[in-house]
Amino acid sequence: MTARIEPSPALFSALRALLGERFSVSPYDIESHARDESWHEPEPPDGVAFVESTEEAAAVVRLCAEHHTPIVPFGAGTSVEGHVQAVRGGVSLDLSRMKAILSIEPDDLDCRVQAGVTRMQLNRELEKQGLMFPVDPGADATLGGMAATGASGTTTVRYGAMRENVLGLTVVTADGRIVKTGGRARKSSSGYDLTRLFVGSEGTLGVITELQLRLQPLPEAVSSAVCAFESLDGAVDCVVEALQSAIPVARCELLDEASIDAVNGYSKLDLPRAPTLFLEFHGTQSSVAEQAELSRAIAAQHGGGEFRWSARREDRDKLWEARHKAYYALKALRPGARGWPTDVVVPISKLAECIRETVADCGSLGLLAPVLGHVGDGNFHVAFLFDEGDAEELGRVREANRRLIARALAMGGACTGEHGVGLGKIEALEAEHGEGVELMRKIKQALDPEGLLNPGKVFRD
Amino acid sequence: MTARIEPSPALFSALRALLGERFSVSPYDIESHARDESWHEPEPPDGVAFVESTEEAAAVVRLCAEHHTPIVPFGAGTSVEGHVQAVRGGVSLDLSRMKAILSIEPDDLDCRVQAGVTRMQLNRELEKQGLMFPVDPGADATLGGMAATGASGTTTVRYGAMRENVLGLTVVTADGRIVKTGGRARKSSSGYDLTRLFVGSEGTLGVITELQLRLQPLPEAVSSAVCAFESLDGAVDCVVEALQSAIPVARCELLDEASIDAVNGYSKLDLPRAPTLFLEFHGTQSSVAEQAELSRAIAAQHGGGEFRWSARREDRDKLWEARHKAYYALKALRPGARGWPTDVVVPISKLAECIRETVADCGSLGLLAPVLGHVGDGNFHVAFLFDEGDAEELGRVREANRRLIARALAMGGACTGEHGVGLGKIEALEAEHGEGVELMRKIKQALDPEGLLNPGKVFRD
Repeated sequence: MTARIEPSPALFSALRALLGERFSVSPYDIESHARDESWHEPEPPDGVAFVESTEEAAAVVRLCAEHHTPIVPFGAGTSVEGHVQAVRGGVSLDLSRMKAILSIEPDDLDCRVQAGVTRMQLNRELEKQGLMFPVDPGADATLGGMAATGASGTTTVRYGAMRENVLGLTVVTADGRIVKTGGRARKSSSGYDLTRLFVGSEGTLGVITELQLRLQPLPEAVSSAVCAFESLDGAVDCVVEALQSAIPVARCELLDEASIDAVNGYSKLDLPRAPTLFLEFHGTQSSVAEQAELSRAIAAQHGGGEFRWSARREDRDKLWEARHKAYYALKALRPGARGWPTDVVVPISKLAECIRETVADCGSLGLLAPVLGHVGDGNFHVAFLFDEGDAEELGRVREANRRLIARALAMGGACTGEHGVGLGKIEALEAEHGEGVELMRKIKQALDPEGLLNPGKVFRD
Repeated sequence: MTARIEPSPALFSALRALLGERFSVSPYDIESHARDESWHEPEPPDGVAFVESTEEAAAVVRLCAEHHTPIVPFGAGTSVEGHVQAVRGGVSLDLSRMKAILSIEPDDLDCRVQAGVTRMQLNRELEKQGLMFPVDPGADATLGGMAATGASGTTTVRYGAMRENVLGLTVVTADGRIVKTGGRARKSSSGYDLTRLFVGSEGTLGVITELQLRLQPLPEAVSSAVCAFESLDGAVDCVVEALQSAIPVARCELLDEASIDAVNGYSKLDLPRAPTLFLEFHGTQSSVAEQAELSRAIAAQHGGGEFRWSARREDRDKLWEARHKAYYALKALRPGARGWPTDVVVPISKLAECIRETVADCGSLGLLAPVLGHVGDGNFHVAFLFDEGDAEELGRVREANRRLIARALAMGGACTGEHGVGLGKIEALEAEHGEGVELMRKIKQALDPEGLLNPGKVFRD
């Protein structure tokens, strides 16, 4: 890792002149911008710039570029691979005050928001107009951060990931220019797809300041169910067959026995201790009923027990809140332990095998590592729980993570389905993409020749 | 436009040594690779290389790179903005013999194909396994060409465009290296999205030789309907309301009166002369019936007449074949005329206004220019029909096209929804993206520094 770059007093004066009190070097602001929710060590920035507009963000980037100072975009700080750590120092560019919802267009099913709007904030507004933004990673992340990380989540099986739901962006480039990508059209073949290039680029190619998002109508009817299975394979096979049968499942989440223990304890549920699917169906009253009945029949053929229904919104909310809080629930399985959440994605036909081998491997390494996943996407999470002071145990976690990634890649999968590369998966990216990483580096070099945008992430320095 | 580059005899000897008879300079092969289906003038390559594998394609590119000779990828030649014209000479790299379907995985709903496989060839194979590849641009294009152009079509409203349906690619880079992008996972946040960068790059960043494609199960039930409307606005408003009501319409095509005349004449139909929607619904028997009934009720509120149903497959096929052959039908409206097909895309709330103004504008310019469109995407086509020998009329077509693009951009749309930039929309791209084109140029420069991959397309030389 290249050393930290000493910040220039002239830069700090200029940032103070630009932003006043909104440029901060207070210990509280520095510390709260030194890390995300991951296991990675904190790396404090030298200052934090709280911007309120695209123009201010561009001005900050221009000043930093003049002074050859790194810029690390910061949203809600909910990322999990060290994306916001200022490993080379510099300025944390905090976009969380850019909270304006700029437009909502029900006829076009789209909206435009500033990057600091969170998904829950947006959905509260959209709901008033019968609309929703479906991408749901669990955390109340900012939409700018979700785009930068290439986030997805529980509803991706039906509605797609950020990549499929961002129509256009406003981006500040490494030299401080403001560029609009994409637009309001629902599709386009007009030139290179800059929008999708910035989505998932983790702040290393530009700073996302505004987003044009595709929306969905709120479904007329929603129904959720929980179903326990005799085996993990049965649960996965059920989902495979449901997708092959073109049932438009809106969510289908898999929890292993350890995860069921965790959510039972943390969210006061009484689910049987077995591999379990949380399912949700969206549609008209009759189509939801039909989807549920077809799914129930398929589940029964694969060792699924009874469907426990939650057609009432408060029951549904309780169920999905339990799922969303699963990471905290898992951490509570071992009080005081540090959590290391990771994710991989494989072709769905390999999912049961990949999870089984992973659980066995973690067991043989003596690790507590519950598993839950977005089974319809072939994507699952492992939450390693370890004693922060125990270097030997941390070594075993590293080994388990290394083997998990190798296992997923050998099965034709990817080293991360939705967490991104950040600091934690740089070697995995190389193992996965080989020569492709050279192309990524060429693009990085072309768009950020000085390497000032979120340095140390995605690529080895 | 930069001048043509004189081919090197040494290159031709090397290509002959590599490919034998499959490197051709015959007048027939040269002429048949000089143009696509567009109005753009033919530009013959100096030779045509018929490759049969990724390795051969890479070897051809390496040889051309050594001799600083342009490479123009060629699939089925069905593009419509001059994408395959060899404006600077060089070698047409014909991938149409790469016709192997490498794998079909029903459990994962994916397949891998060589770039020369056409969509109809693929769908014939998939149908045997109850699967389909939904992207349907009308022409029986190669899948490599469809990816390169960023194609979409009649089913995009439900299933997405190529961008949403390509999981990964094998690409030959400008220096002849073979790079795999993406993979088999249904989603990924592992590094920059090279797959989506190559999709829609029109052969200017690399040569696509293999594709990993996402598949859909064949729907249990399919139902098609035709509905005539009192007004264009009524037809568009009907679709807006259907989408807002979350009806998962599988296809919804709009034909104006002139287009109805054309398909009636060409495909022996007897549709009333009025703005008309062709609709299709996919699902279970009962959900298709429900979708259709909901749509009928919405149509009735917007001046729609009776639904004429085609639940029988042969009737449906006749209807969609008529839609697919519409371009030929339109050309038959004026025998002997040259056709200039173009497309733009706007936010759907602007679609009726954009079409109305376009029809009026073409009328005021004295042009015959029927309109049809993928109304659910806000995307429509205009087919200008003009006398090839009449320079004055061609001038009016150019003016109408220029105004059409300006109108779409002013409404927040894009200069092309699915045809691509090619030779014909280079200025439009600049008008649409401004500074964004600079970023695209930087990427082009980074990945193809000598500018040998499909030169003269997308950017001004």
